[in-house]
Amino acid sequence: MTTMLPVKPDVFHVYDTTLRDGAQQEGLQLNVSDKLKIARYLDELGLDFIEGGWPGANPNDTAFFAAAADGALQLRNAKLVAFGATRRAGGTAADDPQVQALLDARTEVVCIVAKSHDEHVRRALKTTLEENLAMVTDTVSHLVANGRRVFVDCEHFFNGYLDNPGYALDVVRAAADAGAEVVVLCDTNGGMLPSQMGDIVSAASGVGVDLGIHCHNDTGCAVANTLAAVDAGVMHFQGTLNGHGERTGNANLLTVLANLQLKYGWSLVPPSALAEATRIAHAVAGVTNFPFDNRQPYVGSSSFAHKAGLHASAIKVDANLYQHIDPTLVGNDMRMLVSDMAGRANVQIKGSELGYDLSNRDLAARITDKVKAREMDGYSYESADASFELLLRDELGLLEHFFDVLSWRVITGHEVKPEGDSEAVVKVRANGVTYSLAGEGHGPLNALDVALRSALTNAYPQVDFFELTDFKVRILDQGHGTDAIVRTLIDMSDGERTWTTVGVGTNVIEASWEALHDGYLWGLTHSSVSESQPAPEPVQA
Amino acid sequence: MTTMLPVKPDVFHVYDTTLRDGAQQEGLQLNVSDKLKIARYLDELGLDFIEGGWPGANPNDTAFFAAAADGALQLRNAKLVAFGATRRAGGTAADDPQVQALLDARTEVVCIVAKSHDEHVRRALKTTLEENLAMVTDTVSHLVANGRRVFVDCEHFFNGYLDNPGYALDVVRAAADAGAEVVVLCDTNGGMLPSQMGDIVSAASGVGVDLGIHCHNDTGCAVANTLAAVDAGVMHFQGTLNGHGERTGNANLLTVLANLQLKYGWSLVPPSALAEATRIAHAVAGVTNFPFDNRQPYVGSSSFAHKAGLHASAIKVDANLYQHIDPTLVGNDMRMLVSDMAGRANVQIKGSELGYDLSNRDLAARITDKVKAREMDGYSYESADASFELLLRDELGLLEHFFDVLSWRVITGHEVKPEGDSEAVVKVRANGVTYSLAGEGHGPLNALDVALRSALTNAYPQVDFFELTDFKVRILDQGHGTDAIVRTLIDMSDGERTWTTVGVGTNVIEASWEALHDGYLWGLTHSSVSESQPAPEPVQA
Repeated sequence: MTTMLPVKPDVFHVYDTTLRDGAQQEGLQLNVSDKLKIARYLDELGLDFIEGGWPGANPNDTAFFAAAADGALQLRNAKLVAFGATRRAGGTAADDPQVQALLDARTEVVCIVAKSHDEHVRRALKTTLEENLAMVTDTVSHLVANGRRVFVDCEHFFNGYLDNPGYALDVVRAAADAGAEVVVLCDTNGGMLPSQMGDIVSAASGVGVDLGIHCHNDTGCAVANTLAAVDAGVMHFQGTLNGHGERTGNANLLTVLANLQLKYGWSLVPPSALAEATRIAHAVAGVTNFPFDNRQPYVGSSSFAHKAGLHASAIKVDANLYQHIDPTLVGNDMRMLVSDMAGRANVQIKGSELGYDLSNRDLAARITDKVKAREMDGYSYESADASFELLLRDELGLLEHFFDVLSWRVITGHEVKPEGDSEAVVKVRANGVTYSLAGEGHGPLNALDVALRSALTNAYPQVDFFELTDFKVRILDQGHGTDAIVRTLIDMSDGERTWTTVGVGTNVIEASWEALHDGYLWGLTHSSVSESQPAPEPVQA
Repeated sequence: MTTMLPVKPDVFHVYDTTLRDGAQQEGLQLNVSDKLKIARYLDELGLDFIEGGWPGANPNDTAFFAAAADGALQLRNAKLVAFGATRRAGGTAADDPQVQALLDARTEVVCIVAKSHDEHVRRALKTTLEENLAMVTDTVSHLVANGRRVFVDCEHFFNGYLDNPGYALDVVRAAADAGAEVVVLCDTNGGMLPSQMGDIVSAASGVGVDLGIHCHNDTGCAVANTLAAVDAGVMHFQGTLNGHGERTGNANLLTVLANLQLKYGWSLVPPSALAEATRIAHAVAGVTNFPFDNRQPYVGSSSFAHKAGLHASAIKVDANLYQHIDPTLVGNDMRMLVSDMAGRANVQIKGSELGYDLSNRDLAARITDKVKAREMDGYSYESADASFELLLRDELGLLEHFFDVLSWRVITGHEVKPEGDSEAVVKVRANGVTYSLAGEGHGPLNALDVALRSALTNAYPQVDFFELTDFKVRILDQGHGTDAIVRTLIDMSDGERTWTTVGVGTNVIEASWEALHDGYLWGLTHSSVSESQPAPEPVQA
């Protein structure tokens, strides 16, 4: 089956740009903490380069590179890349603050974007074709002279080549001659088709520099265009996690990677890292808070699920008759409907991260079964560590309850007062005393939070430091009817730590209440633990 | 740019299988009414064939074909296709009830699936390779003898060809010799890559029958694989709206169609029909109640939206510098953030469908501006005709209010009684009388519905016939924080008509209340209109 596919070049780069080009997606905002989290997940995948952002272009990205340089990001596999542009027209690279910001980012590798479409040089950049070439030469030379490895993204290369092939190739040549290690051909407006890629990439190969490819999905062909460029000889591809990116998104890095590793048979990342792909793709979606596409190739929860009656009997005979790869190679599962936590090994790893020893196989299997059953109901523990820990402690007999809820209710109505449009009453029993307190707020969750805090504060004054910092809602069941399942995730903080809990229900208020309740319970568990014994405590079971 | 692309064959089929293979998607369920709606939208696109389902395999599909044959579906452009399989092993086509059900569906065209991978014949079908060929021959001959045009889907053709090319081609030949008009090569498990398609399709071309292609997206290449097969000479492709389908979905029909029509320059559907693609894709998502992928090529709301600061200045110079096609060709818009209703022409068409004359340009422009402003807030009118009509009537000064809401509130709590977990109180003034009524229900919306109906029934007894039949919730804003926008759609019925309203808010209860309120208002408007004058009334403005 691989006879028609090319062999791997000696050096081949897997280059991620989720944190830079992916973040151009409408509605996607990543703060420094988000970026650090995503970079760590990318590093787990074992890929080669992580483009972290554009230092100097916005304070967030500058802060991210500063944090990384100061040790906040200990990458084990990947190299961090700072992204920027060629110097301004009419200046010098040494005097350009944007170029200086690239050096200040203190990365070994820098990637700069250069215009390669003559019309863009004249009309968007408003300079001459010659000056644009000088900008490429100066900027690359300056960065190389300062000890950087330099990659150059040729913006709009394909449209540029079709309009003025000589000039587009001149830009590639200028970058190569100035010392660029890789020149990346970018289909910036995403309009190319796979059958158009080969000849154009081959023409650029004539320059004699290593080439890369950067595709967008505007024709639905980002993955195929990337593969077509690989077939034509590029040794570097750029993509993003979950295909994030402007407009229709960038080439999905995991899809391209899985195609190359599992279909072409190329060894690009360790098989054990590829087997984390499903978990990592979901975890990143938890950070970006974009709904995960269940149909995403390789890593979607539906991607190996079967419904057709036609297939059912054959699947019983041999699952491989109906699946294009073994889903465990990418950490997926034929039947896993909510895919975050598939197996015992994952539960054991997660438990050990939290300080619990789950090496006992029966215990780990029992917890795994419970997690799977809860995930079938719509819970998701990948991004709700606090709820997972409560579940663990409950199974281990270590969960202290702190308070019992006797009743709760919330009223929402048309009246908007300064305190909000909702009122809640919560009745709890704690340390033998019953407390019934009311709260007002904007929306039902806010009111419930105020009321629960008031009810608990006498018994546990530390709840005054708990703050509800984020609230996310997902509709899980996309079928008809009024009984869709709702999942809520709540982030809380006590000023030192942040924790996340999950609630599920057919009623958004019921799901919110569950997550809120568990958020307070986790906070109390840990404030109690920290007083009496070191946390997290290792537990032998 | 099109020099490398092939020319259109004399006959070329655009074949949709949303209603059959698309409906295999996890979580997707289509009843007869849904299927009729989607088929009408597909017909508006001007495509050639609509595969309606598998009559005999399930009662729903049988009922759909019966309704279509009895005139419920007046297709103007497309031909309806009944789907089925070859006869059972060891029987005859004439005696096979499943084959008979295909004839009973009374369609001019029938498509049957045939196994073409030897291993599937032996292990899943559990018969001999010879009997499988006989099943193809008999079934096709029988259907042709009964006056049907027959297409044959060769299941697992590509894997079959790679394992046993001679047998896979024997199946194509058997279908062709028995009179099949088109033999469709199916990448059933979706594992192929574009570079593998050409040689295999060319080999099948040697049989001398017209060929089609049917791809799945398991490698992220369904669109590109389809195009590669078209490049190799197929004259028929199958796809689904919004890429619905089992696992990772089928080839997205609109993406392939737009690529062929706008990139290859092939005239497949009227340009005016292609310009409805964005509206139709969203409308079908409204029927299936799957979240619309904003990044869907060509028709997504983000697909021509720009965020990159790098681009902003260039976009001012010339939008075409940064977009791969003119988005209006597919009914999309560079800046349209909620894309359902882009322009004045759409509003005029929609108004005229509802019986209102909006030919006055100023009036239409004013309503369009209002619609756009509301859609920026999160409203969606494409699937909420009733809310759109209320907006129209309000602008035209024709909206009667029937009742004023003085107050409403709803209480949700931990107690689950037989009447539900929620209580609502609604206070309205109607015909000069104030009514304050309570209701109980399962979830806040149910309680509000009971209370509002009770409050209105004295003044307007017809509300007793109103029924809330469906309720859908979408989270629109995928960013961080607690202020995500929620959109609710409510379907109501009075036993004769069904109507849909929309509500939007940061609080799901507030959004639900708005949709519910408007649902009652529309129902009262139309029960009132139908008593006093014919509805919908044409209004000159």
